[in-house]
Amino acid sequence: MFDPATLRFDDRGLIPAIAQDAASGEVLMLAWMNAESLARTLETGRVTYWSRSRKAFWTKGESSGHVQRLVEMRIDCDRDCLLLLVDQSGPACHTNRRSCFYTAIRDGGEVEIMAPSTQS
Amino acid sequence: MFDPATLRFDDRGLIPAIAQDAASGEVLMLAWMNAESLARTLETGRVTYWSRSRKAFWTKGESSGHVQRLVEMRIDCDRDCLLLLVDQSGPACHTNRRSCFYTAIRDGGEVEIMAPSTQS
Repeated sequence: MFDPATLRFDDRGLIPAIAQDAASGEVLMLAWMNAESLARTLETGRVTYWSRSRKAFWTKGESSGHVQRLVEMRIDCDRDCLLLLVDQSGPACHTNRRSCFYTAIRDGGEVEIMAPSTQS
Repeated sequence: MFDPATLRFDDRGLIPAIAQDAASGEVLMLAWMNAESLARTLETGRVTYWSRSRKAFWTKGESSGHVQRLVEMRIDCDRDCLLLLVDQSGPACHTNRRSCFYTAIRDGGEVEIMAPSTQS
């Protein structure tokens, strides 16, 4: 049995979670979970983070409709980071881009490598 | 010009960095950088983290030979997380597995989905 209590949450009770598109392998975002958001994610299959700024549960897509369905959760060797393989509806980023990692460092400058989606 | 001071380091002066295999898209590991390790990484092209446990710079592969060559650094929308596209020599994980994320949660239990490499 998997016991979430065996994970190493930080001193705020949080663990970082990387969301990766299960089909394309694209890294979409990094956000944080506490034990309860992790349990909700496993129970419902809908990825639920803990918003550090709002101090509230954040079920991805609740307001935007850009839901993340959990395909598989993985744990790293130190048990202090999660990798979520997800089925992402629409853009993952609040800027309406597919991924939050749309800025690349190239030749010492910042380059935007991804445009916002024109679909809602 | 890219100015690392515009990134949002946490209260310990650290930022999480996800290493992804530039060729296969596999997520290899997550570790932490401070401003100086980030500067060294960009200067040398060899990924250098900050080890929170050893409180020291950690040039990946220095002792193991399993070097990470930086292909491209990306920044997320909140500027508080890095994505490193890397060329990884050998296994990224200290357990000698290609990726640190070798444990999957399936049917409520933990499953090891990746064997250690038999090559040194």
